[in-house]
Amino acid sequence: MLLNIRVVLVRPKGSGNIGSVARAMKNFGVRDLAIVAGGRTESFLARSMASHARDVLKSARRFASLREAVADCALVVGTTCRGGLYREHSRPPRDIAPAIAAAAEKAKCALVFGPEDHGLSNEDLKHCQQIITIPTDSEYPSLNLAQAATVCLYEIFVAALGDIAGEAIERAAAEDVERLFDKMKTSLLEIGYLDPQNPEHILFAFRRIFGRGGLEEKDVRILIGLFRQIDWYAKEGWKVAAEKKQRGVKVR
Amino acid sequence: MLLNIRVVLVRPKGSGNIGSVARAMKNFGVRDLAIVAGGRTESFLARSMASHARDVLKSARRFASLREAVADCALVVGTTCRGGLYREHSRPPRDIAPAIAAAAEKAKCALVFGPEDHGLSNEDLKHCQQIITIPTDSEYPSLNLAQAATVCLYEIFVAALGDIAGEAIERAAAEDVERLFDKMKTSLLEIGYLDPQNPEHILFAFRRIFGRGGLEEKDVRILIGLFRQIDWYAKEGWKVAAEKKQRGVKVR
Repeated sequence: MLLNIRVVLVRPKGSGNIGSVARAMKNFGVRDLAIVAGGRTESFLARSMASHARDVLKSARRFASLREAVADCALVVGTTCRGGLYREHSRPPRDIAPAIAAAAEKAKCALVFGPEDHGLSNEDLKHCQQIITIPTDSEYPSLNLAQAATVCLYEIFVAALGDIAGEAIERAAAEDVERLFDKMKTSLLEIGYLDPQNPEHILFAFRRIFGRGGLEEKDVRILIGLFRQIDWYAKEGWKVAAEKKQRGVKVR
Repeated sequence: MLLNIRVVLVRPKGSGNIGSVARAMKNFGVRDLAIVAGGRTESFLARSMASHARDVLKSARRFASLREAVADCALVVGTTCRGGLYREHSRPPRDIAPAIAAAAEKAKCALVFGPEDHGLSNEDLKHCQQIITIPTDSEYPSLNLAQAATVCLYEIFVAALGDIAGEAIERAAAEDVERLFDKMKTSLLEIGYLDPQNPEHILFAFRRIFGRGGLEEKDVRILIGLFRQIDWYAKEGWKVAAEKKQRGVKVR
């Protein structure tokens, strides 16, 4: 699917930017680079910014016009940071990315970026069926070309991945967590940390702390291990430590 | 809110990248740039890549260590493109961005990026409560530093635009949490719970558990209280307990 996405740079100026775009493309699984009128791909700067994406740079194709560069594309999406005539239908990349990902399942799709200084012209935008504007701070809305490409490619890549898993952890079963609190209670009473009259008071704070982020099974094991060690120390460990101290051995 | 976001670059190499990060920051309304150990902000390349964000570059602050750079931050989020030990809990920026935006409503939050070649070290990641990994193509997962920053800042900006489900807690400052871990380490070494050869290994699990849900100041006090009690028990408490046991008094 991503191999059906073509990035089209129209009249790019900085060859470093072309290299940076190539790198971002490869990072997000896109390989088809087209350059319309200008821009050097073989410069040292372009190659060094491309880093491990020199293959993308090398296979870039050149076209005399945007029309030719997108001739075989089923969907052509332009990018602009300005509002104004022909641009009022622009939408944020997150809204359009799923449509691009879906269209690219079946046919070539182009993502078109204008020159660094003025962006796509109205003439260029004629060839674009949809327009993306990346939301930015109004005080400095103009993104660097390669950074704009990065955001758009990232959005398409994420849309292509489909739903991203929600919570990253697998919470342990409630019963396991209860056993942890049982253990905590006896251990912390033993060392005099909990008030025997109301041990639940402080335990409640721990329930809150652990409950907030959740505990995985592994976490429960680690915590039970800690309270077992406290039990051991309370029964036997202090003797070992006391003996060592008597012998003048520095413990730890 | 966005003014509470700090971008921290750890040992950055290319001054052009620093300039590009400054530009992306200003594009997304973020101004607070911190640089840990190295990287030039006053070079021609840095200023030219920053474009209209030279003010961000100029006001960047330098720190000797990551710990100092994030000392006043309530939420510290690291970035990594590698999997592996200590990194398996990383999540995509889209999942974490709302929590960052919500936390930044109340306190300073840091977004931490490692050096271009190797990224954040395990030692650096110790200071990060959450870890972001930007989803990329497995064939070339390593994003350019400034492009990675662009994606993360973009996600936070978009999250800030949308409805923010407020995080329920006010996180304690990173330095307070570091003091908690310092205390934990000495106490848990004393009772033999941590491996003296590699105490950080298990502590890392605790960092993850506490970092996931966050700790408020009150929580930090409760936890420090627990480890102080362990210290007291290790020094004096066992004597009291042993004496009582000898006298046949049931402890607890």
